[in-house]
Amino acid sequence: MTTHHFQPTHYPLSFGSHPPVLRIASGDTIITTTVDAWGVDAQGKQVAGHPNPQTGPFYVEGAEAGDALLVHLDRLAPSRTSGYSRSALAPNVVDPEAVSALPEALQAEWLLDLAGMRANLVTPVAGLEGFSLPLNPMLGCLGVAPSDGQAISSATSGKYGGNMDYRGFVSGVTAYFPVSVPGALLHLGDGHALQGDGEILGTGIETTFEVQFTVRLLKGRKIGWPRGENADYIFTLGNARPLDQALQHATTEMLTWLQEDYGLGGRAACLLLGHCVEYDLGNIYDPAYTMVCKLPKRVLPKPSAAV
Amino acid sequence: MTTHHFQPTHYPLSFGSHPPVLRIASGDTIITTTVDAWGVDAQGKQVAGHPNPQTGPFYVEGAEAGDALLVHLDRLAPSRTSGYSRSALAPNVVDPEAVSALPEALQAEWLLDLAGMRANLVTPVAGLEGFSLPLNPMLGCLGVAPSDGQAISSATSGKYGGNMDYRGFVSGVTAYFPVSVPGALLHLGDGHALQGDGEILGTGIETTFEVQFTVRLLKGRKIGWPRGENADYIFTLGNARPLDQALQHATTEMLTWLQEDYGLGGRAACLLLGHCVEYDLGNIYDPAYTMVCKLPKRVLPKPSAAV
Amino acid sequence: MTTHHFQPTHYPLSFGSHPPVLRIASGDTIITTTVDAWGVDAQGKQVAGHPNPQTGPFYVEGAEAGDALLVHLDRLAPSRTSGYSRSALAPNVVDPEAVSALPEALQAEWLLDLAGMRANLVTPVAGLEGFSLPLNPMLGCLGVAPSDGQAISSATSGKYGGNMDYRGFVSGVTAYFPVSVPGALLHLGDGHALQGDGEILGTGIETTFEVQFTVRLLKGRKIGWPRGENADYIFTLGNARPLDQALQHATTEMLTWLQEDYGLGGRAACLLLGHCVEYDLGNIYDPAYTMVCKLPKRVLPKPSAAV
Amino acid sequence: MTTHHFQPTHYPLSFGSHPPVLRIASGDTIITTTVDAWGVDAQGKQVAGHPNPQTGPFYVEGAEAGDALLVHLDRLAPSRTSGYSRSALAPNVVDPEAVSALPEALQAEWLLDLAGMRANLVTPVAGLEGFSLPLNPMLGCLGVAPSDGQAISSATSGKYGGNMDYRGFVSGVTAYFPVSVPGALLHLGDGHALQGDGEILGTGIETTFEVQFTVRLLKGRKIGWPRGENADYIFTLGNARPLDQALQHATTEMLTWLQEDYGLGGRAACLLLGHCVEYDLGNIYDPAYTMVCKLPKRVLPKPSAAV
Repeated sequence: MTTHHFQPTHYPLSFGSHPPVLRIASGDTIITTTVDAWGVDAQGKQVAGHPNPQTGPFYVEGAEAGDALLVHLDRLAPSRTSGYSRSALAPNVVDPEAVSALPEALQAEWLLDLAGMRANLVTPVAGLEGFSLPLNPMLGCLGVAPSDGQAISSATSGKYGGNMDYRGFVSGVTAYFPVSVPGALLHLGDGHALQGDGEILGTGIETTFEVQFTVRLLKGRKIGWPRGENADYIFTLGNARPLDQALQHATTEMLTWLQEDYGLGGRAACLLLGHCVEYDLGNIYDPAYTMVCKLPKRVLPKPSAAV
Repeated sequence: MTTHHFQPTHYPLSFGSHPPVLRIASGDTIITTTVDAWGVDAQGKQVAGHPNPQTGPFYVEGAEAGDALLVHLDRLAPSRTSGYSRSALAPNVVDPEAVSALPEALQAEWLLDLAGMRANLVTPVAGLEGFSLPLNPMLGCLGVAPSDGQAISSATSGKYGGNMDYRGFVSGVTAYFPVSVPGALLHLGDGHALQGDGEILGTGIETTFEVQFTVRLLKGRKIGWPRGENADYIFTLGNARPLDQALQHATTEMLTWLQEDYGLGGRAACLLLGHCVEYDLGNIYDPAYTMVCKLPKRVLPKPSAAV
Repeated sequence: MTTHHFQPTHYPLSFGSHPPVLRIASGDTIITTTVDAWGVDAQGKQVAGHPNPQTGPFYVEGAEAGDALLVHLDRLAPSRTSGYSRSALAPNVVDPEAVSALPEALQAEWLLDLAGMRANLVTPVAGLEGFSLPLNPMLGCLGVAPSDGQAISSATSGKYGGNMDYRGFVSGVTAYFPVSVPGALLHLGDGHALQGDGEILGTGIETTFEVQFTVRLLKGRKIGWPRGENADYIFTLGNARPLDQALQHATTEMLTWLQEDYGLGGRAACLLLGHCVEYDLGNIYDPAYTMVCKLPKRVLPKPSAAV
Repeated sequence: MTTHHFQPTHYPLSFGSHPPVLRIASGDTIITTTVDAWGVDAQGKQVAGHPNPQTGPFYVEGAEAGDALLVHLDRLAPSRTSGYSRSALAPNVVDPEAVSALPEALQAEWLLDLAGMRANLVTPVAGLEGFSLPLNPMLGCLGVAPSDGQAISSATSGKYGGNMDYRGFVSGVTAYFPVSVPGALLHLGDGHALQGDGEILGTGIETTFEVQFTVRLLKGRKIGWPRGENADYIFTLGNARPLDQALQHATTEMLTWLQEDYGLGGRAACLLLGHCVEYDLGNIYDPAYTMVCKLPKRVLPKPSAAV
């Protein structure tokens, strides 16, 4: 149950079997930092490539293929007062006939009021004078090394997690990932001070973060896709294109979860899921889109297992 | 401002230019009933074909192509104590490799406690003994006649609305539809006592409804896709496959709305939408899927127009 | 075995249960004309609306739901010397990021050399001086009335056929459609002097046609989707978005065909189809895309039935 | 212009920046072998993992990001007499409702008659007694290392090529790949004695190959996606899901090619492509699907550049 303070010095641009930056044990807590999506740190210095340079990977002692890695997000906090976003919708989220009318994708600058927990638009945009939004700090990227020695760009996502841009990944949330390689190799990055559903601008408000998280190794807990849990919901994440397929992955994973861990037969699992499911949209911008399948805990039977 | 009590005697199975059942004026209120998705009425009598027999169409005096029809859902209430749903997920919402393991799609019976506003599962399903859920009465089908003399099955949806299975269409909500034919020809049906996101069973809890609604004709208000409004949000609905395209339609319509009615330029509209948007899933079961693009009213500038 | 000469006077804009223009018997031959996609006839006169005004519907005596209608395309021939096409790719067939760079979609004029069977580009386009292509006259629209009293725009397609824009529908080809309404109600139109795969401009070279076809009613031959046959192949057509789903429909229909009519078990049908299938792209422009699943006749066992 | 004989001893399972097995120069010819998709060699010995173990990577001297690598397939020939395929369609290529009726996916054994160039089905399958098909040897996998240090499973494909399963990659064909890393790092494997369009069984007839190819480095020839050329066509390959997006990539790449190398303006390129394009389906089984955009050489102006 050690607490590690880790200051990264280099930042991989892919989720992969890179040399680990730190070896940690199940139960350990790590306090670290992330740089922004373009590789700029809290002091405004370009210290990494882009997009989405990662902090990590962290090697979890004893983890191996067939386990699950629990990651509790203890605290996510922006660590500087500047953020930026794109000011045009991505061409793939509007009708093809409407693409040509989109504005040029200039950068919008934001001033982050970390005490008041608000983002204030700095770039002058007619009609948005004094525009201010409440912060909702979240991690765009979170995951482990993919299987088969792969190293996959931190621009995208898969069964291993990755760049899912789900705005449900906030402080207090627990995430679970399927381990594919020794040590699991946890990566994280791409903090957003706030983000709309789908990351349809291609960005949230991009900034640097201080992150505290705690890991726990779940030996022999085989899962297929990233899962998560907050105070009110359990959820699964599917990553693919089109969105339909992302939803299929997330729904299938939830169906498995209900049957394996909540003692439900197929019919009971379908009925429960079918009547109570809620879906969230992660990103619809990256090479793989993300769909989140959620079930309220209040409708769940008592679980027989932890994940 | 007349209030009409209308009892249907036949139920079209498509959204189309059928002979109107009643002529009403802008501002009128209609109190009527809908049968369930399989054509059974509140007395348990088979009175219509299926799927999704419609009440209507109602002819709104003065409506013509290029107008919008506002429909305020004053009150939606189940009108019998029995409901049913399917007990297996639809094959298209799980991974193709998982289809064969789905249970047989038997019918599940529900007892609707209309006073307590709960649905209680009657069919014995191991693991769901005493299963009970709060009612959330909603209309699966709502819309006007499509353009060009078309008559399109009430199994699907389009720019004219139709079978969108959006569980946001509850009492108190206002919907808007683009008028394509004289009289607009409003259809409604397919009441669900409650439904999960996506209607992934292929049903909600299907039952009969008493419906009260009020229409208002918005002359010369050209809109492209169904829109809506509740206490907290404005929203647009896109209907298409895959889900990506449904989202493109809904997002494009919202972008238009922000620019035409809220006085925002393209950049401001993109920034506002991109940072504040929330997406809901209507159905992912019907021939056309439905995606809903929502914006919280609290972030909107004062509108210059009603829709 | 009557031969009818039929000159249309009005042209529906949807595939539907419109009043039939002519009643014909199984075995009859019809010689008729089609106007171009914008409703202009062989004399250059605007005689119909758009898009894709249809000749028909023709009522086939004795046809009813559950039958199949065979349509042999005896002869398709352009009937005027002018044709036109769009000169820009449709926005949906290029990357969203490439849409803004597409040229404006001006009309391109073609002179049809009906004796030499060539289309010669008339509109001056730098780099395409003297551009000339061999004619391949085909029907973009072909089908029967859809089920359930529907009337569906001739801009799109479905199980009933419709606007499939398959350049395999040329003289000598036999098409089969599932009958859904009494009389089948055959519609045809949208002749293309030639067209590339996918109709990715949104047009072929649009012109008017003389069409001779012969129908045969196949009583009790239940099929699910349009089918066809030429000298070398049998084929099935699926219509949907995305293209993946169109392919699923076409492939499933072919699998059924092999099992029902060629005496093959599931494994044999899969092996034969999997190793020998060829796919053609119909359109990837209309609301529903079209994919064609083909099998060479040389690899087929002797059929036990005609369709 | 050296000819190298290279016998692989290990086989990577991903396209990536693996240590090169041989350094070759532009103009060199390589004669080598590939093992089958499950890692079995010509002697029937399991020598590699799966799926799709690769021969290579080959380091081409002087290649760097921004170049193109030309690979001429001089000769592809099966090198053993046994092959196998799956005997059931993949679940994702039929309607979701039809998945449960698919046969079990047993292995089918084939005897390859290398002199007569035919594959003869050995596994007894009722209805396919004496089933025999002509060989069409092709490479399922071909490509270079992806960008950004990625290593991506040889089960899928991308801009770098990969597992495209295009049955147009036969002897005599020239392929072009965008170079992303020093040396280009060419990989090849997954030989199919024959394959239907789409690889809808999830396999062709899998076997081992002798391969002879010749490379040429095209300095400074920036291309976006794999391209190719045979006696009659130039073509581009797009890899993505859904198929629509694969087609968008291939079409956009062809549009670029026509404008950059054939001296055509945007309008001329659109008109030429739109009227003359033919599409082939690569695979519709792997994580990324493959669509091929082809143009007949006979309609092309004289190119100003080689690729």
